[in-house]
Amino acid sequence: MSWYHEPAAVPSNDHRQNAEQRQSQLTKPAGSLGQLESLAITLASLQASDQPQCDNVSITVFAADHGVAAEGVSAFPQEVTAQMVQNFSAGGAAISVLAKSLGAQLGVINVGTVSELPDMEGVSDQRIAAGTANFTKKAAMSSDQLQQALHIGQKTVLKAKENGAQLWIGGEMGIANTTSATALACAYLKKHAAEIVGPGTGLDNAGQIHKSSVIHRALDVFNATSQQPLKNLQYLGGFEIAALTGAYIAAGQIGLPVLVDGFICSVAALYAAAINPSIKPWLLLSHQSAEPGHSSVLAAFEQQPIIDLGLRLGEGSGAATAVPLLRLACDLHNQMATFESAGVDNKS
Amino acid sequence: MSWYHEPAAVPSNDHRQNAEQRQSQLTKPAGSLGQLESLAITLASLQASDQPQCDNVSITVFAADHGVAAEGVSAFPQEVTAQMVQNFSAGGAAISVLAKSLGAQLGVINVGTVSELPDMEGVSDQRIAAGTANFTKKAAMSSDQLQQALHIGQKTVLKAKENGAQLWIGGEMGIANTTSATALACAYLKKHAAEIVGPGTGLDNAGQIHKSSVIHRALDVFNATSQQPLKNLQYLGGFEIAALTGAYIAAGQIGLPVLVDGFICSVAALYAAAINPSIKPWLLLSHQSAEPGHSSVLAAFEQQPIIDLGLRLGEGSGAATAVPLLRLACDLHNQMATFESAGVDNKS
Repeated sequence: MSWYHEPAAVPSNDHRQNAEQRQSQLTKPAGSLGQLESLAITLASLQASDQPQCDNVSITVFAADHGVAAEGVSAFPQEVTAQMVQNFSAGGAAISVLAKSLGAQLGVINVGTVSELPDMEGVSDQRIAAGTANFTKKAAMSSDQLQQALHIGQKTVLKAKENGAQLWIGGEMGIANTTSATALACAYLKKHAAEIVGPGTGLDNAGQIHKSSVIHRALDVFNATSQQPLKNLQYLGGFEIAALTGAYIAAGQIGLPVLVDGFICSVAALYAAAINPSIKPWLLLSHQSAEPGHSSVLAAFEQQPIIDLGLRLGEGSGAATAVPLLRLACDLHNQMATFESAGVDNKS
Repeated sequence: MSWYHEPAAVPSNDHRQNAEQRQSQLTKPAGSLGQLESLAITLASLQASDQPQCDNVSITVFAADHGVAAEGVSAFPQEVTAQMVQNFSAGGAAISVLAKSLGAQLGVINVGTVSELPDMEGVSDQRIAAGTANFTKKAAMSSDQLQQALHIGQKTVLKAKENGAQLWIGGEMGIANTTSATALACAYLKKHAAEIVGPGTGLDNAGQIHKSSVIHRALDVFNATSQQPLKNLQYLGGFEIAALTGAYIAAGQIGLPVLVDGFICSVAALYAAAINPSIKPWLLLSHQSAEPGHSSVLAAFEQQPIIDLGLRLGEGSGAATAVPLLRLACDLHNQMATFESAGVDNKS
């Protein structure tokens, strides 16, 4: 049995019950803090703690290039993947600013830019190859490369946990990676590309129609079926997407809650849960993306995302934006007075 | 002309344009930060600044009792208003915890509990009367009392601005105040009580039907019309609701952006904008409440609330919860690199 089939940790039912009971005793009408209550209860259960915490947040952005970019499916040139890695390192990207504001640990892992990059602070070079192959012509990666990518994800969350992370966020950067993610979503959800395709970084209508036909062609060549998530990942995936998949699985196995970002990360999470359904409780959905296919992917989870701000940037930025709300949920849970302690009458 | 008819400050169009231009140059696909972009642009315009900020947040909770509580319209006994004021002061209420987590200034103003309260830290005694009158029988307050309440709100935001607030949040506490707010909403929006009424702090179905009939009766007695917002406020309002209305108007006049909380605050904001339409740009909607009437009230504003977490607690808690998202919007706006500064290629 491969490591990724090993069962996930089991959330604590006792701590869930304690947390539910505490919420009913806090000085507010029952249920009036809505999702802030359920998030605190879920975290208490996942962290097996009566005092859930999200102070230590670890964010990893996986970056890689995609062979399918050659089909002209992105509004941005392929060079941007490497340029954005430099921007992450220099602190100028959205996720860099968010990580700093949140006091979160941010690491970037280069799992496969087209060219080798110079050494940069905060960037770990773990290139598997010079980008994936163009999956309209052949499998995006070899089976061995898929294993490598999954394993990089696993190592990443093990290290995050070791360093005291209470919550892990994965992000991605890779020009053309919504094309890969859309193809994966279509294969798993048995949908036509036209139902799921979106603008990605900013394609116009004609561009989206072209992107859709490229994906349609690839799905035809590959003849993908949802029953083979690992095969789908190998043929249609990206190194960063597979690394995220490995990370989500490993996070569930070691009992580290993760906050799933937008469209691409949700597809990786979908595949993680397909490969190993036991990890599902460890995945928290952070936001509803503006990318049209996101709703179809989210429907596979029985969860309401925390925010819906029309974000569609990736990098882990939507998940990072939701972190303060999780923190406030914890603070309310841990610090509010009870009816009894405050001498407030409960419902008449 | 009364003070509340004086025109509001005018947001800076130059700063709006600068902010829009800056957003288009930051290293992200145009528009990909969704509402985080528009919020930063709005704040830049309201604060007339190229570096919008929400570090200094001032929160005031107005507390008062309602004569209509005698009609049995709340799930909680009237004593809870005063008990919750003590809970605010002691730091055990939701808004106390949120204010502490945000590093925000929190003040509580007693504008009319039924009984006089002992001196408490952080609570200012500005009681107008021992609660409002039961508005199913007579006007909730006198015209003079309405003026007092509006004026207390005005003084509050003037002081907040003086103390360096960059954003002001109003909250409310008052058993039976969703009944007052629902009556006000019905009068202004010309709706039947049954269309807007909700559970408040937790009424069951029978309770809601009773609440609806009480409101219906009051509207019949008073014969409210939307053309007279001040008269509506006097007949159907509460001291805390009128104080919020005065505060929102004054905030617009002195150019202090406000973040409007849930159902009750939104009704106060609706009346503020009805009395003085020029203040509308200064009102930012924080959240979509679970109270069913909130949507009808929000429809009067051309704005999307920031969060939708099923909150229905009041106290300013929904607005406080949205503050970190405004702060992140500012940080992204102020700190992200531009395509030029980061050497990243823009859209091809």
